[in-house]
Amino acid sequence: MRTVIVTDVPRPPRPALEALATVGVATVHEAQGRTGYLGPDLVARVPGAHVAGSVVTAVCWPGDNLMIHAAVEQCADGDVLVVTTTSPCRDGLFGELLATSLRRRGVRGAVLTTGVRDVAALRAMPFPVWSAAVSAQGTVKATAGAVNVPVAVGATLIHPGDALVADDDGVVVVPRAAAETVVIKAREREATEDATRAALDAGELGLDRYRLRPLLERLGVTYERY
Amino acid sequence: MRTVIVTDVPRPPRPALEALATVGVATVHEAQGRTGYLGPDLVARVPGAHVAGSVVTAVCWPGDNLMIHAAVEQCADGDVLVVTTTSPCRDGLFGELLATSLRRRGVRGAVLTTGVRDVAALRAMPFPVWSAAVSAQGTVKATAGAVNVPVAVGATLIHPGDALVADDDGVVVVPRAAAETVVIKAREREATEDATRAALDAGELGLDRYRLRPLLERLGVTYERY
Amino acid sequence: MRTVIVTDVPRPPRPALEALATVGVATVHEAQGRTGYLGPDLVARVPGAHVAGSVVTAVCWPGDNLMIHAAVEQCADGDVLVVTTTSPCRDGLFGELLATSLRRRGVRGAVLTTGVRDVAALRAMPFPVWSAAVSAQGTVKATAGAVNVPVAVGATLIHPGDALVADDDGVVVVPRAAAETVVIKAREREATEDATRAALDAGELGLDRYRLRPLLERLGVTYERY
Amino acid sequence: MRTVIVTDVPRPPRPALEALATVGVATVHEAQGRTGYLGPDLVARVPGAHVAGSVVTAVCWPGDNLMIHAAVEQCADGDVLVVTTTSPCRDGLFGELLATSLRRRGVRGAVLTTGVRDVAALRAMPFPVWSAAVSAQGTVKATAGAVNVPVAVGATLIHPGDALVADDDGVVVVPRAAAETVVIKAREREATEDATRAALDAGELGLDRYRLRPLLERLGVTYERY
Amino acid sequence: MRTVIVTDVPRPPRPALEALATVGVATVHEAQGRTGYLGPDLVARVPGAHVAGSVVTAVCWPGDNLMIHAAVEQCADGDVLVVTTTSPCRDGLFGELLATSLRRRGVRGAVLTTGVRDVAALRAMPFPVWSAAVSAQGTVKATAGAVNVPVAVGATLIHPGDALVADDDGVVVVPRAAAETVVIKAREREATEDATRAALDAGELGLDRYRLRPLLERLGVTYERY
Amino acid sequence: MRTVIVTDVPRPPRPALEALATVGVATVHEAQGRTGYLGPDLVARVPGAHVAGSVVTAVCWPGDNLMIHAAVEQCADGDVLVVTTTSPCRDGLFGELLATSLRRRGVRGAVLTTGVRDVAALRAMPFPVWSAAVSAQGTVKATAGAVNVPVAVGATLIHPGDALVADDDGVVVVPRAAAETVVIKAREREATEDATRAALDAGELGLDRYRLRPLLERLGVTYERY
Repeated sequence: MRTVIVTDVPRPPRPALEALATVGVATVHEAQGRTGYLGPDLVARVPGAHVAGSVVTAVCWPGDNLMIHAAVEQCADGDVLVVTTTSPCRDGLFGELLATSLRRRGVRGAVLTTGVRDVAALRAMPFPVWSAAVSAQGTVKATAGAVNVPVAVGATLIHPGDALVADDDGVVVVPRAAAETVVIKAREREATEDATRAALDAGELGLDRYRLRPLLERLGVTYERY
Repeated sequence: MRTVIVTDVPRPPRPALEALATVGVATVHEAQGRTGYLGPDLVARVPGAHVAGSVVTAVCWPGDNLMIHAAVEQCADGDVLVVTTTSPCRDGLFGELLATSLRRRGVRGAVLTTGVRDVAALRAMPFPVWSAAVSAQGTVKATAGAVNVPVAVGATLIHPGDALVADDDGVVVVPRAAAETVVIKAREREATEDATRAALDAGELGLDRYRLRPLLERLGVTYERY
Repeated sequence: MRTVIVTDVPRPPRPALEALATVGVATVHEAQGRTGYLGPDLVARVPGAHVAGSVVTAVCWPGDNLMIHAAVEQCADGDVLVVTTTSPCRDGLFGELLATSLRRRGVRGAVLTTGVRDVAALRAMPFPVWSAAVSAQGTVKATAGAVNVPVAVGATLIHPGDALVADDDGVVVVPRAAAETVVIKAREREATEDATRAALDAGELGLDRYRLRPLLERLGVTYERY
Repeated sequence: MRTVIVTDVPRPPRPALEALATVGVATVHEAQGRTGYLGPDLVARVPGAHVAGSVVTAVCWPGDNLMIHAAVEQCADGDVLVVTTTSPCRDGLFGELLATSLRRRGVRGAVLTTGVRDVAALRAMPFPVWSAAVSAQGTVKATAGAVNVPVAVGATLIHPGDALVADDDGVVVVPRAAAETVVIKAREREATEDATRAALDAGELGLDRYRLRPLLERLGVTYERY
Repeated sequence: MRTVIVTDVPRPPRPALEALATVGVATVHEAQGRTGYLGPDLVARVPGAHVAGSVVTAVCWPGDNLMIHAAVEQCADGDVLVVTTTSPCRDGLFGELLATSLRRRGVRGAVLTTGVRDVAALRAMPFPVWSAAVSAQGTVKATAGAVNVPVAVGATLIHPGDALVADDDGVVVVPRAAAETVVIKAREREATEDATRAALDAGELGLDRYRLRPLLERLGVTYERY
Repeated sequence: MRTVIVTDVPRPPRPALEALATVGVATVHEAQGRTGYLGPDLVARVPGAHVAGSVVTAVCWPGDNLMIHAAVEQCADGDVLVVTTTSPCRDGLFGELLATSLRRRGVRGAVLTTGVRDVAALRAMPFPVWSAAVSAQGTVKATAGAVNVPVAVGATLIHPGDALVADDDGVVVVPRAAAETVVIKAREREATEDATRAALDAGELGLDRYRLRPLLERLGVTYERY
């Protein structure tokens, strides 16, 4: 690994981040063609939180949170910290003290493919965190890693400076260059969904609204009585 | 797979369903001889919900929710929708819009071996859902499946028209023909448990109440001081 | 397995248990050199609970909770029950009735590497439980096991009479002989953390407070602009 | 669970079983419309084995192999034993001694959702076994179960007397009534595959042979240079 | 997802690929600073195989192998095919027929995060495959994906045209621009390892050869008699 | 963790180790009352190997194999090395070079709850290894741990100087003080199994040999025709 800390990462336009903070993760994911979702293993540890921010990445060695400390210094107001490890690790790399530092810097939340601890305190602050586990297992500060390099989570590539949205459905990433376009598409999708919701609530069926009956027939799906 | 949509499935007697909606999942499971439980992977996504209903099944291809739309039309007041896939899948096949359709039809809840999304909205409605994951990952509508065919979840076989009970402990299925008998046995078990609870709360030990001391002795379990 | 029930297990000093009940799991874990944590799979089923107690162990056969009943009799005021199985099992070995018995005896909570059921009732009592699963799957009482023998959970060895602390971060075990020392170290650590929290909240960086900049340099970590 | 041992289960026609023993699992699975596969967790423990037989089922309690002994008596020449448990269990419920009994009765192999042991001996016999694990963990004989009742494995329902085929790709089940039809369809599919293999080996592309280019275009897939 | 098929991907220099085919995966991984390994879930299905090639990527929908057919056309002599899905899937997306096509084109092997089938035939050919599962579960050809776009596997980013090495230890990827440098470093490392192996075989300890005794002392590790 | 290296660990009697090397893991496990098995996740990476030895333990930090180097010096002829980590880790902590050192010292094999690499070379030597994974992922040497302290694997406690037996069924541990007794019981059990095997091969049923028919009747198991 290149053991480097990259500084001065460009951020997405601030209005795009503010707009994304009001759109659900599922809607953003659909608006950009069903991409960018980080998968069901990243669970909201502060239920009800809904944030958006510009990504700062940290890559740590398993059982070691040294590079999170280096990443804090690269975080600015409106950012979200994303932490991964070079091989899978569920230890508690992040807790109340790091959250205190990030909150002070205006960071909106943290996403970790590892565990987090002090969850009662994180909920009380509240400081929103998404993680693969809750774990009190402590870590050392002994091995080099990287800050603000591209990382992979699940099937998704994340670059520093991408936009990130997180809510109770998990976490989705939007490439920086696409942030403004995705806001527009997400708004359109919300409008469509509002209309669909009203129609379904009035009794129209998805089979009709989405014109699925001909598809079922073409696929050879038949009806028969019990 | 037979790509078929079965209609006019018979339901359990309505009073049996109403009675089951007041009995806990663990009690129903015990009352029918420790069978019918769908396992610990199906988690209540709307905590505190407790429902019973008649099963409508949908079998989908992984990453594809076409057949859920076909299943909605087969759902009536008092039903519960059960969705499985032909191979394991944690994508978000179900969300707020489908829940709106089901609620409109009087459906009591949904059980999916996959993921669900829009969980904040589902809790706000509230529309009770049990699932193996929370996932914003979207799906296509491209591949045939089946509605109201028998399905398997864990070690349990489920037939359309079976009774289903779900609460914070998970989901249990009762064969349609057994629904009324199970209600009676569950009531008896509740009465027994009430008496046992009072006795244990008064200090009687399970070792004595269940006459386990002779069993321990027969099994060769001995006592020794530290 | 030696099928034995060990009685008269010595307990840690009561004041040490009372002190530990006010210290977080992560702090206790750190205070004893990052040991004793039982891992992220043991989840708090009654959120917000925070207890400490003296360990009573029960070792069961999978699908069988006979030895829990034998263990209840060995439990006294201030204890915590720890249940493991001889091979992995997620069935619901523990529920409201056993919790009623334990509460009557002054037991502070239960920790199970298996599943638990009646979680809605456990929350209502409340009786704090940590477990690897929620499962309504019932069990038999047919096979011998042991009470108050040493057990292993994750990488941690647990002896009967050890102190145990549990909160929303999970469960940590403190050897009986170390309980009083760990209380002192935990208090010291809390004081240090209070000072650190204040410093971080005032804007000091962990990089400086923990003197990590020289370490990063020694490890060859470099800075570069985007 | 109905604790019953069902006798005199009808078998598929013997010639159909003999024919199926020469067809690969993947081909059988495709020939019956991509159904019946028991999933990737059932691994061939005697590599290279390829068998077909009539299903005898046994349902055991976790950690308990009592019902396998009852099932042996129901096994006849040409059968395959299928063992499941009421909740997940990886213990070694089956080993060399049970294999000796089954071999003596002309049984073709065994399929277990649990673990097996004595695998070196099973390979030496050889007695073909497919299982979810290799485990030396021993079991008791203490709890009732069932023989020759329907069981579920993954998403597949299995009835006693169904045909079963197993090879290095895993295990597939064919409903008894469909066995002869599936043999015919599998033979047709083999012929088609032979022709396809020859064409592909000669350089024809699947894109052309399966006429996939128009589909890609309809789905909006485009080509661009790097 | 951009549903695109990228053509004319540049390859690493052919001599670098040929050199890499003679170096073990672990050595390549170390030679480029402990990066590029795709993780322990990708298992060699044709034991003993050792290949290197230029990466062609295919991204499929779960349960759907349409894009593999499109990818075959982009494969040339000396390539290796890498297949991922948009969400986790263990179905058998790849088997003997696709292997026949790839072999015809001079492809060295295939790496799939999904399942593969026809493993007996793949071993007989032999056509080397690394995959997360063996599964006979069949797939459809219905949903768009991408060919030769960047993909993520575990924590590693893979670009089309990267070099890939695979053996019994798994799979490692080398960025195209680094291929020649990594060959040189891997050769150096092999020489060092040869010398180390001889020294260890002669009785020298790693503690001395790697000068670890001072490190242990600095870390506070002490010796004591049993 | 006490960061200590314990020296001069007493070993089991050499004849007991030599005898255990000829007894299967499953037999040893049964002979000591179904205890000591380390579970199905520790897989034989050199198939067909069968060893016994005296345990030397090493406890490592995840992603760090420093303490294995310290443990090598504590290994003597007839030993087996057992490596665990403070939290779960599948990285390749062990490979050909460490195996060369151990072989030189007369060590019989290694058991790791982590991954191992260079498996082709380990098979060629051969040096028998049991592990939870095969992984080329490299490690650092940066964090303190312990050698020859008690460790836990699955539900089993292991002390340095215990006897260990491993074959294709996995790994079982025998407390040092019990080694000679377990050899005697294992021999008795082998004799019993020989007789049972002959009887079963001659057609006697387990139902009769183990007198299970009365048990089935007492448990309420009934027979009925299909």
